[in-house]
Amino acid sequence: MSAPPVPPALGRVTLIGAGLIGSSIARAVRATGAADEVCLHDADAQVRARARALDLGTVHDDAAQAAERADAVILCVPMGAIGAAAAACAPALRAGAILTDVGSVKAGAAEAMLAHAPPGVHVIPGHPIAGTELSGPDAGFADLFRDRWMILTPQEGAGTEYHAATARLEAFWTRLGARVEVMDAAHHDRVLAITSHLPHLIAFNIVATAADLETVTESEVVKYSAGGFRDFTRIAASDPVMWRDVFLTNREAVLEMLGRFSEDLAALQRAIRWGDGEALHALFSRARHVRREVIEAGQDSAVPNFGRDTSSR
Amino acid sequence: MSAPPVPPALGRVTLIGAGLIGSSIARAVRATGAADEVCLHDADAQVRARARALDLGTVHDDAAQAAERADAVILCVPMGAIGAAAAACAPALRAGAILTDVGSVKAGAAEAMLAHAPPGVHVIPGHPIAGTELSGPDAGFADLFRDRWMILTPQEGAGTEYHAATARLEAFWTRLGARVEVMDAAHHDRVLAITSHLPHLIAFNIVATAADLETVTESEVVKYSAGGFRDFTRIAASDPVMWRDVFLTNREAVLEMLGRFSEDLAALQRAIRWGDGEALHALFSRARHVRREVIEAGQDSAVPNFGRDTSSR
Repeated sequence: MSAPPVPPALGRVTLIGAGLIGSSIARAVRATGAADEVCLHDADAQVRARARALDLGTVHDDAAQAAERADAVILCVPMGAIGAAAAACAPALRAGAILTDVGSVKAGAAEAMLAHAPPGVHVIPGHPIAGTELSGPDAGFADLFRDRWMILTPQEGAGTEYHAATARLEAFWTRLGARVEVMDAAHHDRVLAITSHLPHLIAFNIVATAADLETVTESEVVKYSAGGFRDFTRIAASDPVMWRDVFLTNREAVLEMLGRFSEDLAALQRAIRWGDGEALHALFSRARHVRREVIEAGQDSAVPNFGRDTSSR
Repeated sequence: MSAPPVPPALGRVTLIGAGLIGSSIARAVRATGAADEVCLHDADAQVRARARALDLGTVHDDAAQAAERADAVILCVPMGAIGAAAAACAPALRAGAILTDVGSVKAGAAEAMLAHAPPGVHVIPGHPIAGTELSGPDAGFADLFRDRWMILTPQEGAGTEYHAATARLEAFWTRLGARVEVMDAAHHDRVLAITSHLPHLIAFNIVATAADLETVTESEVVKYSAGGFRDFTRIAASDPVMWRDVFLTNREAVLEMLGRFSEDLAALQRAIRWGDGEALHALFSRARHVRREVIEAGQDSAVPNFGRDTSSR
């Protein structure tokens, strides 16, 4: 006797944007049965053609058409395009529908969606902490969200219906394999500023610094990158439009974290200049401890060198 | 008919230090037959006991004893210990023997070895661009150097015998699977300052910055580290003593690269503060291009997310 099938968490889900995240949601819905039906729209005709070829769902040339009769519309576009995507869907959104997103900055996403959502539509911003350095519909895969965190930042002071809608969205993401957390939008934006936005900014920056040197050629940098530099190039390969928008919309939190980082770096620079080995050793030892915590929390693999060597061992 | 066996590149090789690199050389020699015999010494009695248990070679409690009748002594110790290790081996070194190392700073390593090498001993500094974030004799493996660069920085103006010794050392590393390059020591130290030392310094720094925040807890940083931060914790997990010594001995080149990096970061900070999206996009797009070069040069895997997701795909 097999268990009775679990009913879908949502009826029709509409995805606006079929890049890495949108196409992964489409694949994950098919793999898990988390929704009855997937409709898609992408502003780029080539991406729509790819989405049709990959059979990701019912692809519409018009955003409002894609959003018709949707229980939830998920905006899977860069931060700077959320307002326009919400406006395009707005005429088709019915009362009781969920309008959500997957953007990296939650205060900005809430503002952009609330500016266009018709009355009775439940705006519930969301952010899956999942991704790779690749972009586009071909980069997605069904397991992208499995065992990854999904942060929802619902509005405060909303009523019973809104809470019920939040519970449905939570059930949907849980079905995709994610672990859902609820958080205040402003706090989310500070947490992500340090765990994601600042690391990306620094990676972009060091790659540019290295490419601009006169005394060391770019081909030497590439050739000897196995010493550490190559790890930075990976996250610096992420979508430039997405990241431009993140820094423009989470400006204050990023500048705050960047200020701290620069202050700490100046102290480290001073320790190097004055040959303060004790200070260097103390700081480097602390960093090792944080790595252990990341491994223990299941947030990274303990395989040395990201398993790059295992193929030949 | 099988091919005749290739003769070993060296007779007796002595390794001073049996950590990640020393123990990997010992294993690689056994796997490839690059030398007739491996002798080892480590200043730490516990490491010597592990080296015996792992059967890495003939383990000696005394460095000079280990170095007796060696064709090449390879110092596999942190930069700050090279001088003492060279001094300890010196009485046993015979004329014509090679004295080399695997340290990350070549001008400093040359100076430390030359200060103690008896006349007739060939000092040939070397640096394999290979490693993982793990340390100790158990972390080593025979394929660590396969298809990785090995940089030798021989002294200028030396005679025929020295050139012959350099050729023997080159043949030895080639047998271990490495691709050998010859370079000027000062140039090596600048190249590595940008490809390895600065990336490590920045990784150590951001991990410390994150751990010190009041508005975001350390457990939140760990929990949401999949957004980018976790990649930095990997290289920040490397041996603190080794890295302290690198920054103390390659001070000038590191400070120069750090100055460039901070200057570029200040420009980026200004672009964020003033909302200059065009400048951000232009810089982020360039970084993507460098990543492509790293992949094409075979210096990293093109598998997204370092293949972390492949196990579940």
